[in-house]
Amino acid sequence: MNRKAAIIGGGVIGGGWAARFLLNGWDVGVFDPDPEAERKIAAVMENARAALPALSDVPMPAEGKLTFHGTIGEAVEGADYVQESVSERIELKHKVYAQLQQSNPGVLIGSSTSGFKASDLQKSAVAPENIIVAHPFNPVYLLPLSEISGSPANPPEVVEKTVQIMKDVGMFPLVIRHEIDAFIGNRFLEAVWREALWMLKDGIATTEEIDEAIRMGFGLRWGQMGLFETYRIAGGEAGMRHFMAQFGPALKWPWTKLMDVPEFNDELVDLVASQSDAQSGMYGIRELERIRDRNLVGFLRALKERNWGAGKVLREHDERRAAAFYAEMAKGLDTGAKAAPLVMWQGQVLPGWIDYNGHMTESRYYFCNSETVDNFLRLIGAGMDYVAAGHSYYSAETHIRHLGEAKLGDQLRGELQIISADEKRFRSFVRILKGEDCVATVEQLCLHVDMKAGKTVPAAPEVWANLKAVADAHAGLPMPEGVGRAVGQKKE
Amino acid sequence: MNRKAAIIGGGVIGGGWAARFLLNGWDVGVFDPDPEAERKIAAVMENARAALPALSDVPMPAEGKLTFHGTIGEAVEGADYVQESVSERIELKHKVYAQLQQSNPGVLIGSSTSGFKASDLQKSAVAPENIIVAHPFNPVYLLPLSEISGSPANPPEVVEKTVQIMKDVGMFPLVIRHEIDAFIGNRFLEAVWREALWMLKDGIATTEEIDEAIRMGFGLRWGQMGLFETYRIAGGEAGMRHFMAQFGPALKWPWTKLMDVPEFNDELVDLVASQSDAQSGMYGIRELERIRDRNLVGFLRALKERNWGAGKVLREHDERRAAAFYAEMAKGLDTGAKAAPLVMWQGQVLPGWIDYNGHMTESRYYFCNSETVDNFLRLIGAGMDYVAAGHSYYSAETHIRHLGEAKLGDQLRGELQIISADEKRFRSFVRILKGEDCVATVEQLCLHVDMKAGKTVPAAPEVWANLKAVADAHAGLPMPEGVGRAVGQKKE
Repeated sequence: MNRKAAIIGGGVIGGGWAARFLLNGWDVGVFDPDPEAERKIAAVMENARAALPALSDVPMPAEGKLTFHGTIGEAVEGADYVQESVSERIELKHKVYAQLQQSNPGVLIGSSTSGFKASDLQKSAVAPENIIVAHPFNPVYLLPLSEISGSPANPPEVVEKTVQIMKDVGMFPLVIRHEIDAFIGNRFLEAVWREALWMLKDGIATTEEIDEAIRMGFGLRWGQMGLFETYRIAGGEAGMRHFMAQFGPALKWPWTKLMDVPEFNDELVDLVASQSDAQSGMYGIRELERIRDRNLVGFLRALKERNWGAGKVLREHDERRAAAFYAEMAKGLDTGAKAAPLVMWQGQVLPGWIDYNGHMTESRYYFCNSETVDNFLRLIGAGMDYVAAGHSYYSAETHIRHLGEAKLGDQLRGELQIISADEKRFRSFVRILKGEDCVATVEQLCLHVDMKAGKTVPAAPEVWANLKAVADAHAGLPMPEGVGRAVGQKKE
Repeated sequence: MNRKAAIIGGGVIGGGWAARFLLNGWDVGVFDPDPEAERKIAAVMENARAALPALSDVPMPAEGKLTFHGTIGEAVEGADYVQESVSERIELKHKVYAQLQQSNPGVLIGSSTSGFKASDLQKSAVAPENIIVAHPFNPVYLLPLSEISGSPANPPEVVEKTVQIMKDVGMFPLVIRHEIDAFIGNRFLEAVWREALWMLKDGIATTEEIDEAIRMGFGLRWGQMGLFETYRIAGGEAGMRHFMAQFGPALKWPWTKLMDVPEFNDELVDLVASQSDAQSGMYGIRELERIRDRNLVGFLRALKERNWGAGKVLREHDERRAAAFYAEMAKGLDTGAKAAPLVMWQGQVLPGWIDYNGHMTESRYYFCNSETVDNFLRLIGAGMDYVAAGHSYYSAETHIRHLGEAKLGDQLRGELQIISADEKRFRSFVRILKGEDCVATVEQLCLHVDMKAGKTVPAAPEVWANLKAVADAHAGLPMPEGVGRAVGQKKE
């Protein structure tokens, strides 16, 4: 049975949490008195479905069940976890916690608060020990950070349980050592926000110019190394001490107006809002969200390729779910022994895969085949470890037929049939399927090589035994239509 | 003849400038009294060569000539532009400018200063009007931002000339309206730096935790939208005014310690340096630089795919150089008419193209073919505009032979031969070459389709005429070895 999260408050943040839980296979019960909540969450879900699965190389679990409730008590019924994302009013939060703890005593409550400390949130609660800060960043369904901040009232097991739930939905829980206002991220955001408002007010730069100054420069650095690792590099061969010696004195220079805050009045709001309209008003909010999401998917995918930072979090999340996936694949292998093609891969068409026709670009069909064959190799015992030990299957020759079109967000799967095999090679035939439609077929000859010697050699006995079992089972299957074709050959 | 830049000061920043100018085809003369300067710049160049060309879809110009000089006077001889990146000591900078202006009167001098205003730099200069701030961000060869900040002494044409030079080397020049200390980017960095040092000092978080708080959250957002566009989205459907109303009051809350600065002493330096060692000490600086560069190439490539932010700058830089590239391709077409295969694509193997064997992943050979064929289509008049008008060539069937290996950073090119063609289709044979080695061949059948009707139709007369001219010329070429093969077919 699915675990259940109660989402109290379904705005931008609450909706993002709902999406993250649902797409990770949790059921979600929402309470939000806004009559528009259901429509708003549906819009967030649409964005999230197009983005989050695009980060996974393991099939996502079936989406959880989403329900809306008229009372907090109903929403929290049977919940294993509550994420509270109501407005930043402490009395309101206290009222919500009282209702939650009355309806579901003992439930763990994480708050999305941007600034209240856990000890503020816990005041006057029946069970203060079960209330903790779990502060995310928008878009919640893509950015991994969740700042976990407890008070001395929270026992270690509550912190640990929160950490585990965050990991379960693919987040990076950062436990903060001491209670401080605004945790870590928002302190920096606040610092930059103050400075930015001064620049606008003084006419130094517009909202657009400030955004360019960030995203064309240090913003790119910070997405992958943060502040200190970046500065460590800036110190060059002489390192961090050199950097400190060089830039430390700047602390005393009049480089910021941080000592003071600009007056927050209508004039300032007008200035910011009108400049922002000039800069971004040509896009609707949903459109901007989609642009942002695709950019973030691109960044996160790049980091995942390099197993770095947030990309490492994604890989670890895949690994946690991989056991179930490989068990499913192994079932496929049994099926293979029963003479049916093996479904060896599932995935989603990503933004970077689209060509100028709006279709999946042709080389990505080959990529889908590679993923399918790689999973098959892992299954027969010729995965990463086998490669690391010096042997591998290399592709020698491939024939691809393009039979249909795949578009952004389409769910594809790769179904593999072994046409022939011996100790040194195999011929595979992969159908790339979209639902029941076959959008491409890929026939391929792979040779088993000793990588160091650079020549074809027999596979290890256990690998060959596994391969042979599948090949023998598949020998009974009809030869697929299109096998053995040359390019442009007439149909027979 | 190449233009020439004089680089005064060859540290991390000066070296990065040298690399950017050289790789964009400028000659570079360096002055740096450090006896290690030549070795250090060679190290920067090695990193830059692996990274900057990976962002270009137009072949890079031939690398400029790099020379080292014993005096400022020699370095600046014949220079069209000077980039000064010496230490942040105003007397030193004044001395350097005096020597530069004596040896090459009238030369434009951009300073990499992190904080001095142009009017400070210009004091006591013979020609203050030719001294301006052009402030980059590390790594200079990858990050596009250059903050251009002049004083009232700089005439508009000096600002404009600086802007044009920055664009010529692929940067994003951001002209700052009013002189302020530290420009825009460093003001934000300084604000965050202060807050971060407080957190370390107070034991709230370590350098590593602070970096995680940035790169797992808002750092990813800032690399593509900056501050205001991100907040516009956070306002949700209600927009920027709603966001301001929600977060404006936070300006008055005690969320930062910005009002004060921590004392800069040995204890603080030790704390930062030792935490940084614990966090990143397992990597050497050069290794960290390479990791950073590959991450940045991944981010920038993702943005380029989406034509957004810094990716838009890359596309525009390509476009500026594309005229020369297409002229070169058109020469290829003439050659084609003279019956030789056409070199239609050149490119570099990118970090994201590598598989777990350390080789270019198989689907990328198909990608190289796609790029080659796309350029050929553009050449015969079936490019983007033609597609936009409703017709396109679709790939029907492809046969790939893997004959060799390509590795990270290898330069590849695609050479195309037309095997046969009629009004409705053509068969191409592309060799993917690394130097003189053929690493793969790709044979392909493309059909000319009416995209709306979804059926094969004859090409427009002018497209067919261009295609036929090449096909007729290529009819005289010998049939390439390997044409017409099916997978696993015995050699004849």
